[in-house]
Amino acid sequence: MLLSKFRLDGRGALYEQLARVLKRAIVEGHFRPGERLPATRALAQQLGLSRNTVLTAYEILRAEQLTVSSERSGTKVADIDLPPGFTSPPAQVPPQSRYAARLRKLPVSPAGRVREEVRYNLQADPSFLRDMMRSWSRKLAAAARVAGAHYPDPQGFQPLRIAIADYLARRRGVVCAESDILIVGGAQQAITVAARAVLDEGDTVVIEDPHYHLLMEALTAHGARIVSVRTDENGMVTSELARHKARLICVSPSQFPSGAIMSLERRVELLDIASRQGSWILEDDYNSEFHFRERPVSALRSLDFSGRVIYVGTFSKTLFPSLRLGFIVCPPGIRDDLCKVKRLDDLGSPAVEQAALAAFMRSRHFEKSLRRTVVALQHCRTVFVEALRRHCGARIAIQETHAGTHLVVWLQGLEYSQLTRLRELGVARSLGIYPMHPYYRKPPDRPGLLLGYAGLSAESLERAAELLGQCLDDLEGERRGR
Amino acid sequence: MLLSKFRLDGRGALYEQLARVLKRAIVEGHFRPGERLPATRALAQQLGLSRNTVLTAYEILRAEQLTVSSERSGTKVADIDLPPGFTSPPAQVPPQSRYAARLRKLPVSPAGRVREEVRYNLQADPSFLRDMMRSWSRKLAAAARVAGAHYPDPQGFQPLRIAIADYLARRRGVVCAESDILIVGGAQQAITVAARAVLDEGDTVVIEDPHYHLLMEALTAHGARIVSVRTDENGMVTSELARHKARLICVSPSQFPSGAIMSLERRVELLDIASRQGSWILEDDYNSEFHFRERPVSALRSLDFSGRVIYVGTFSKTLFPSLRLGFIVCPPGIRDDLCKVKRLDDLGSPAVEQAALAAFMRSRHFEKSLRRTVVALQHCRTVFVEALRRHCGARIAIQETHAGTHLVVWLQGLEYSQLTRLRELGVARSLGIYPMHPYYRKPPDRPGLLLGYAGLSAESLERAAELLGQCLDDLEGERRGR
Repeated sequence: MLLSKFRLDGRGALYEQLARVLKRAIVEGHFRPGERLPATRALAQQLGLSRNTVLTAYEILRAEQLTVSSERSGTKVADIDLPPGFTSPPAQVPPQSRYAARLRKLPVSPAGRVREEVRYNLQADPSFLRDMMRSWSRKLAAAARVAGAHYPDPQGFQPLRIAIADYLARRRGVVCAESDILIVGGAQQAITVAARAVLDEGDTVVIEDPHYHLLMEALTAHGARIVSVRTDENGMVTSELARHKARLICVSPSQFPSGAIMSLERRVELLDIASRQGSWILEDDYNSEFHFRERPVSALRSLDFSGRVIYVGTFSKTLFPSLRLGFIVCPPGIRDDLCKVKRLDDLGSPAVEQAALAAFMRSRHFEKSLRRTVVALQHCRTVFVEALRRHCGARIAIQETHAGTHLVVWLQGLEYSQLTRLRELGVARSLGIYPMHPYYRKPPDRPGLLLGYAGLSAESLERAAELLGQCLDDLEGERRGR
Repeated sequence: MLLSKFRLDGRGALYEQLARVLKRAIVEGHFRPGERLPATRALAQQLGLSRNTVLTAYEILRAEQLTVSSERSGTKVADIDLPPGFTSPPAQVPPQSRYAARLRKLPVSPAGRVREEVRYNLQADPSFLRDMMRSWSRKLAAAARVAGAHYPDPQGFQPLRIAIADYLARRRGVVCAESDILIVGGAQQAITVAARAVLDEGDTVVIEDPHYHLLMEALTAHGARIVSVRTDENGMVTSELARHKARLICVSPSQFPSGAIMSLERRVELLDIASRQGSWILEDDYNSEFHFRERPVSALRSLDFSGRVIYVGTFSKTLFPSLRLGFIVCPPGIRDDLCKVKRLDDLGSPAVEQAALAAFMRSRHFEKSLRRTVVALQHCRTVFVEALRRHCGARIAIQETHAGTHLVVWLQGLEYSQLTRLRELGVARSLGIYPMHPYYRKPPDRPGLLLGYAGLSAESLERAAELLGQCLDDLEGERRGR
């Protein structure tokens, strides 16, 4: 009999499973409208189920109007007109929107984690605040009782916005009102929210080269025409900006991932061009706190007196990435637009985590832990740089940067073609290393590595540098062997 | 002297405040390039600050390259070329994208909360799970230690996806793999993610009338051409669909806000039309759990064997709105697109809350508390309906619905023009009531109210019904008085 084709799927109660099987059989036309279903007793026996199970399954079908039953004629399939071809299997479909078409054409993201488990993973994502999760969990529990169950303010929890405005004035030189701040789900959402507010398909956007790849992907998917502008040791080369007449200029004044700090001259020129051309500037201040100079350089936004800068801050670096909280300091002219975009996107970020973060910032735990982190990072960096020099010598050139959680290291005399092999050798020695060129649109002349040191202890970094030296030896050995 | 124009803003340390004031003075051209800043001692005296404060402020300016200093000539403004008009005040700007232009034209959202504090607030947002916040806070604290600090899987925390797939099979008749599930920030984000995956500007979307207004707003902002289709006691009138050739059809089979349950015939017709026209169906299953029949009707998705239904579930109703978690069951053909959209939108939802929710669902606390809630809601409903009949009698008609958290009540013999006054009378008696017509594109013939009963106790509902009766008396009195 037909039912043998359909197997119970093992999910939930037996009567539910049976009801699903029968439903599918009806919808697929194995029972025709008006046809009688098997007698419950017979079916139960055939399937080795209790009669009650079958009765309950039939009751479900009746409740969902798929069958009718009468005392006289038992249970019959209802008189529903099931169109032919109703159950044609789902095909892989072509892209269903221009956005989807662009998505499908995106290059594979760089710098995915090494798939294999490696002991010494020099990835760029920081994970140095393990202790923080403990104190964070306490804050969360307290916040859950405070935050309230209702829809949050789509612009963000007000005490959090106040805490951020205060923090920005003290630490980043940015003076703004809490009403200028919009809480978003990390820097990534800031980018997509801003894109909707100021960009149409086909509009030109300038990004830096190198750049944060998910910025490029999100703007490409949005339909922007992306052009890139070189960076050097003073950050974005602003003299190249004017000819692009960009609608949006994306800049990280602590340049990601090169670590170069944008000079004041360039900052002023950038602001001037934006003001004259009517461009918007998206300032990604991702690395603000992890600098090893006496004081952090103020944000570009602190010089923006003509309201062109969309300032983006995130807690992914200063707290932890899985938090997914960040913020925009909105220029007054488009503040309402940005807030409305966020509201229609997701009605606002989760209330409990916002309340916890507000408490965390207010308690000054946040800044205390930042200070401790900066000291720890500086120590790690010193140890790592020294160990790299010792173990890798002249085979690498360490770039002078102010980036606070990773190093950029250029591989001397190596070809791009050898990079994949070097990474494999790394995995064999339980070392995860990451190439630099995927962050560029125009790859640099020589291959390089982006080595995150924030996730490992000083001892592990010492060992990682040693392993890198051994991998370079291995590579050299293989080349000679050939 | 010039500085008197600039007031310290009281934020952070005095030297930071002074540095900001001086910076602004330089940028605005009150000190010209090459000009000497006042001697530190003199400035300190003039402003009543310690000399150290002034020295530190000058040091900040130097670090930010705004000044240069030498022993011989003190501190001078650096030779930067500040363009004229650099500080023109930010004007209100015209919309900067077509998206923003559409945003600005959106009608004001209906059903905002009554601004005044009222004791008996019959709003539609549920808030009946106050106790749940306590057990939720424990789950959260535990989850913070489990979830990990790294970037979450953009598709969603896998144990949560598994728990949802299991739940859907048991409770909603939906059989899917965890890999078909995408975790999003509530139903609202599901809508905007789906829109990007399947809709271009100008594409036609069918929505129900009445409908969830933020669905309409989000799709309008996206640039869709919205057409609406009538609903009756069997849900969406599917015979009206064919002529619209919509790319996307948005339906809530437990119709929001009317509460009508879509009949099987209509469901089958809808699926057939979608399959023949190549339309996508967005099923908003918002009200699935709060029904007062023996069993909930299975989701439309449970009949969708041709992969056209984008099923949207949310925990805003079953847990609480401030959680901001929901999910999409993706049709196979566009699953990867939907997941990529979410990734580029915000890199995934917060990990800790996902881990907490997974634990909550696994522990069956979730379904236990749902069952308790349904019983409590049914009691509230019965009390409220009876009290309304007693106190308002023939002046209202209570619509027969299966909606689980609100009633729809039509006002007999009242004009739309009297509705605003009725709401004012409500506020005067500390009663918050909400009109029905803003949920419609074509307002119904007579005015109606959407009365949420999930936020109040049975006693309060009794009193609220009495107050509504008194308000209707008041209105009658005023009319006679004229």
